[in-house]
Amino acid sequence: METVKVDLGERSYPIYIGADLLGETALIRRHIDGNQVAVITNEIVAPLYLEALRASLGGLSVDVFTLPDGEQHKNLQSFGSIMDFLIARRHNRTTTLIALGGGVVGDICGFVAATFQRGVNFLQVPTTLLAQVDSSVGGKTAVNHPQGKNLIGAFYQPQCVLADTSVLSSLGKREFSAGLAEVAKYGVIADAEFFAWIADAADRLIARDDQALSYAVRRSCEIKADVVARDERESGVRAILNFGHTFGHALESLTGYQALLHGEAVAIGMVMAADLSARVGWLSLDAAQRIKQLVARLGLPVCPPALSNADMLQAMGMDKKVLDGKLRLVLATRIGEVVIADDFAASELDATLSAGNSLCDG
Amino acid sequence: METVKVDLGERSYPIYIGADLLGETALIRRHIDGNQVAVITNEIVAPLYLEALRASLGGLSVDVFTLPDGEQHKNLQSFGSIMDFLIARRHNRTTTLIALGGGVVGDICGFVAATFQRGVNFLQVPTTLLAQVDSSVGGKTAVNHPQGKNLIGAFYQPQCVLADTSVLSSLGKREFSAGLAEVAKYGVIADAEFFAWIADAADRLIARDDQALSYAVRRSCEIKADVVARDERESGVRAILNFGHTFGHALESLTGYQALLHGEAVAIGMVMAADLSARVGWLSLDAAQRIKQLVARLGLPVCPPALSNADMLQAMGMDKKVLDGKLRLVLATRIGEVVIADDFAASELDATLSAGNSLCDG
Repeated sequence: METVKVDLGERSYPIYIGADLLGETALIRRHIDGNQVAVITNEIVAPLYLEALRASLGGLSVDVFTLPDGEQHKNLQSFGSIMDFLIARRHNRTTTLIALGGGVVGDICGFVAATFQRGVNFLQVPTTLLAQVDSSVGGKTAVNHPQGKNLIGAFYQPQCVLADTSVLSSLGKREFSAGLAEVAKYGVIADAEFFAWIADAADRLIARDDQALSYAVRRSCEIKADVVARDERESGVRAILNFGHTFGHALESLTGYQALLHGEAVAIGMVMAADLSARVGWLSLDAAQRIKQLVARLGLPVCPPALSNADMLQAMGMDKKVLDGKLRLVLATRIGEVVIADDFAASELDATLSAGNSLCDG
Repeated sequence: METVKVDLGERSYPIYIGADLLGETALIRRHIDGNQVAVITNEIVAPLYLEALRASLGGLSVDVFTLPDGEQHKNLQSFGSIMDFLIARRHNRTTTLIALGGGVVGDICGFVAATFQRGVNFLQVPTTLLAQVDSSVGGKTAVNHPQGKNLIGAFYQPQCVLADTSVLSSLGKREFSAGLAEVAKYGVIADAEFFAWIADAADRLIARDDQALSYAVRRSCEIKADVVARDERESGVRAILNFGHTFGHALESLTGYQALLHGEAVAIGMVMAADLSARVGWLSLDAAQRIKQLVARLGLPVCPPALSNADMLQAMGMDKKVLDGKLRLVLATRIGEVVIADDFAASELDATLSAGNSLCDG
């Protein structure tokens, strides 16, 4: 097992990474104060891992709330249902919530933890690669609004993150690749050497080689923890973690959160962001090409679905990085370095949005 | 104008107290960063004070959301409606919310501010005495759940509190007295001298004498700010601010949040807490009597409505101070000092709950 620390003063916490961590009773119990626990999970994950987690919670009073699967359930209605459940089961301020699942479960459970009785403790037990390398780390919690992703939420840190790499073997191919999109992102935004390693290790990653996976999760968490420690509430540098996400969120929103997995939307979004970065002359065409090639190499889509530029611009305008009406995007200057910029010409953004299928060309 | 500082490190903020502050443009604008503002108010307050506030916001883009009046609207549905409104009007992370109203408006607006796009700035402009001395200060934000008050919320501090004492002249008699209940509470929990001053100044307070009111608001805010600075998230001493509130919340909940104003429920709750404090032998009968007399003197009810002990105990059991199933109450040891206790006999609590109309006797 390896431990990455997220350094946030009194809100610091460890990320544990390794095989078979769900069975590490002592490790888990160390982060539970009271005798009440509520596990928030979903219908896909529960049959696979709930019993293993339960076995590590012996002696505690454990309630389980099971969500339906899917991003479309990450909304205020599910939030309200979990609140009703906790209140009906008389959970109080000393309860500990445990998010057992992917990003949807982690985000909504975290938001419930942030707001139930004005905040209770919670543990993140991410069961997808995407959640292990991204959404479970850093304290972003939220639900979606019909008009946009994560528009209602809070910054709220867990007591720990338990990234059990053994559970990744049960992921479907698409979902697994979606997680690799975020891994590739860390290379682009912060670490050219890691980017090169991912390209080199792509086959081993896709084959879910234990050692390659553990390293990918650890290095991703290290980069994320470092960025989050410098800017917990995203007043500045943390926005670089959103490379590809403004495009990606718009794609998800316009396709009803169903056609694309989040990681797939981010994958296409990174290709679009790289394309725009090259158009404005900040990124070499070669580097933009390398980003696209790695995305494709990891089994991810690179072509945006057919959407009008007007719809995309409208959807991107709802992004949280919009400042007083001005769209800001994370653009790459080289592999391993990005900037947050609003000084690109509207015509260049338009050209990227119009590129459409030409982005698909190798 | 007087200024009381709430000392919370990087989350510190001033409370401004004085007449005609709604017209202090420069003072208000100092706390607004972007050019977007959303005023959250209600149907009673808007006709009285919205234009005065608007006049101080010239040049900014101002949207207004008007809630119906009443505690029954402080719920997740109203929360969702305000979110819909902000998103429809394309507010973004740099927007500033302004809560113009009493405790309901302040609590719900604060919770929206805490969670819209994971947190935006907000200003508290409390228009009731209760909100000026209590709910607008200290960062407690929330909405109610059918099973209990403030069960869903966050600790989230405003940029400033603007307590314009001029607006108190328009309050109805009941609502004004309800605010005095919290003023009296500060005397009981922290300052015997202030308690004596309130008793002495009761006539002037009820007549809304400007000087007496300003002093009552300032001293109340000082005591609250001091407690909050020592324990922002209520892990300990902050709970003393809840003197009378566990009884009071149960009374409100069991009467559907409509029969009693919050301050009236707290008034009765303080009489019940004083009664229990005397029954367990921690408070002199004389002091309990003085508390009851002051409550009555301020135009507040002292008798609980007819409710069964079983219902009261069930409702009190939902209180956020319950720890692993054990009910904790704030009880007085003398005027000016309280303790947080769970070591009272169930039979004594039962006796207080059974006392009913005998509490009404002078």
